[in-house]
Amino acid sequence: MTPRINIVTLGVSDIAASRAFYQRLGLKASPAGNDDVAFFDANGIVLGLFGHDALAHDAGLAAQAMPAFRGVSLAWNAADEAEVDAIMAHALACGATLMKPPEKVFWGGYSGYFADPDGHLWEVAFNPFFPLDAEGRITLP
Amino acid sequence: MTPRINIVTLGVSDIAASRAFYQRLGLKASPAGNDDVAFFDANGIVLGLFGHDALAHDAGLAAQAMPAFRGVSLAWNAADEAEVDAIMAHALACGATLMKPPEKVFWGGYSGYFADPDGHLWEVAFNPFFPLDAEGRITLP
Repeated sequence: MTPRINIVTLGVSDIAASRAFYQRLGLKASPAGNDDVAFFDANGIVLGLFGHDALAHDAGLAAQAMPAFRGVSLAWNAADEAEVDAIMAHALACGATLMKPPEKVFWGGYSGYFADPDGHLWEVAFNPFFPLDAEGRITLP
Repeated sequence: MTPRINIVTLGVSDIAASRAFYQRLGLKASPAGNDDVAFFDANGIVLGLFGHDALAHDAGLAAQAMPAFRGVSLAWNAADEAEVDAIMAHALACGATLMKPPEKVFWGGYSGYFADPDGHLWEVAFNPFFPLDAEGRITLP
């Protein structure tokens, strides 16, 4: 039994606004979505958007106010430092919030962070030790 | 510019314990990991484990106590209801916490939730509208 991640679902306060943000960012919304949920192909993994309270309820939990840091980040890996800068500029132009400008980091790469309209964290990184394959996926050592 | 999710990083309180949990679950730890970080291939997307406080610091945020619900869930999609049950039983045997037993859900599928040692939410689901391809990936409509 080999675990896999098929979907990352983010709880959002306004489905329409978040769908529009991710469309501006460059993702194509699937017609499988509706007023209450959105799905995007994020390169073989699905990014889902679902109401914050609805997602909590779905997992049998109480919805709670979110701290700025939620213990999770998503990473969009780029081919080089210049692409990191370009992605970050694009994300900010799309309405993302800058959390940390791209900079050289201790592990030997180059990385910055933005947050989506609900504060979900995205890292944009160049990692010279994790080259991307022709499909833009990481092949781990 | 097409966004992609390359890595989902979970902040954890004990790297060794969480690495061992995900290894029991069936993931293979990459030798790229060390005492401070772990990486697993989760079917073309990388699952990363990093210290909770270190991850907050990396994003330029203060570490905070985590609510049970953090606004994010990961989904492991199965081929049918029986596989959902088998995955859930396996996860619980590996030390996961049952959050919601698998049941038929309003959107026409079958889904349950478990939490990893730090409370990160995993949905295990059969979605008849999102068939899996030969590589176990969802092809969105």
